[in-house]
Amino acid sequence: MKPFKQKLYECMDRNNSLVSVGLDPTIEKIPSSVKVVKNPFFAFNKAIIDATHDLVCVFKLNAAFYEAEGADGVLQMKMTFDYIRETYPRVPTILDAKRIDISNTNHAYKKYFFEYLNADSVTIYSHVGLPSAKIFLDEKDRGVIVLVRTSNAGAEEMQDVKVDGKPYYQYIVRRIVDEWNYNDNCMMVAGATYPEEIKEIRELAGDMTFLSPGVGAQKGALEKAVLAGLNSVKKGMIVNSSRGIIFASSGADFAERAREEAVKLRDEINKYR
Amino acid sequence: MKPFKQKLYECMDRNNSLVSVGLDPTIEKIPSSVKVVKNPFFAFNKAIIDATHDLVCVFKLNAAFYEAEGADGVLQMKMTFDYIRETYPRVPTILDAKRIDISNTNHAYKKYFFEYLNADSVTIYSHVGLPSAKIFLDEKDRGVIVLVRTSNAGAEEMQDVKVDGKPYYQYIVRRIVDEWNYNDNCMMVAGATYPEEIKEIRELAGDMTFLSPGVGAQKGALEKAVLAGLNSVKKGMIVNSSRGIIFASSGADFAERAREEAVKLRDEINKYR
Repeated sequence: MKPFKQKLYECMDRNNSLVSVGLDPTIEKIPSSVKVVKNPFFAFNKAIIDATHDLVCVFKLNAAFYEAEGADGVLQMKMTFDYIRETYPRVPTILDAKRIDISNTNHAYKKYFFEYLNADSVTIYSHVGLPSAKIFLDEKDRGVIVLVRTSNAGAEEMQDVKVDGKPYYQYIVRRIVDEWNYNDNCMMVAGATYPEEIKEIRELAGDMTFLSPGVGAQKGALEKAVLAGLNSVKKGMIVNSSRGIIFASSGADFAERAREEAVKLRDEINKYR
Repeated sequence: MKPFKQKLYECMDRNNSLVSVGLDPTIEKIPSSVKVVKNPFFAFNKAIIDATHDLVCVFKLNAAFYEAEGADGVLQMKMTFDYIRETYPRVPTILDAKRIDISNTNHAYKKYFFEYLNADSVTIYSHVGLPSAKIFLDEKDRGVIVLVRTSNAGAEEMQDVKVDGKPYYQYIVRRIVDEWNYNDNCMMVAGATYPEEIKEIRELAGDMTFLSPGVGAQKGALEKAVLAGLNSVKKGMIVNSSRGIIFASSGADFAERAREEAVKLRDEINKYR
């Protein structure tokens, strides 16, 4: 198996793109023509994937939107990961799970993330510390993307509080760079809505790749975020858009319109590279 | 619907117990007689629940062990929550999910936690801050149990770092007590393996209830933890044991042996109340 970072960088090159399309369907928002078929989330995703696979560096699935539909949703999440892996094997995947537990329990999560769903990478929190995170970090070919500075309003309450005069999220960054990245498979979530913070994280993080949500529906200042986040090889940044792309149209043309939005975002980002 | 805290306290009184039985099955560890039936996790859980429902204040299900089995596991997690709710409606439940996302996504998790699974309470991280956590906290009859000080080795890396001269986890405690608990439905995770820390959290947290894992398989110092954690009404503490109870025997007598271990733990805790 090829390491996630290598698969990601090759896809960035091949498609000339830093775009991640976030496959986050909801029953309320998928087109009514899709809603009525069996496995509607999978049908919706398949159309989006087919329409955008040559425009992205990665596909990201947020587990919440599938788990909201229970066992049916989880099955369709698996079907989606399987479809990408079988049909577009060179396009890597992120499972946006945002979880972690203590060691024993992480073995169960590892089975879910990397065996059942077989995602190339996963997002995790750092709260329980390295000995527990190690269960994931030891999987050297999988990417482990640690939540550092999130894109939402109110993130500052828990993330910006000062540790030795610096925000707590910078402490997390230092720990990841210094200790967690022993397999060179760590990345970090740094929300596109906070370009100043991205800049500071880039100064601490060397060439490590960031996953930056918050473009589009969350109104990030794209130019500033990209200029702050690019690394020395003009990559190092995964710019995720979910709703802005997949729900661009609620009609039968949703996949075409998703493609148009993905092209637009790819080109807009590339202007600043 | 009765608020989680009220349901919990009534169950603590009725069963004279602070014990939480953690229903965390794994294919490797459930008895071979159960392994071969349809929905083995549910069959296993049902036997444990029937054998211990009058000895506990709550049942806790850690999502990881079900999600490890994919859609099949998630369905059996739902069957277990449904069974408890229908058969022992006065025994409350905890979904140990250890997750949170930004606001939009939390609506999807809310659907999973409180509609699909219909758990009485859920464990969450605090990292994204109050405006996002509000999606859960607004559900005033559900308990929201925030990860503060976990029970695992290595927890200190991210949790004990100093903020204004005090450990970061104490900052989280203060935020929860001061701001997050506006519906009086917050609780906190404070691992039984760290009695000193529990004592300090109790000083900050008034009578708020703690969920304390780490007894049994994790070798917590039970007496010290209970003495440090009890609140002014000799409750305020949920002492969870999973493996120590449910895997007490790997033979056909597993439910009986689970009952014996639950009795033992209940009585041991009650000695210090």
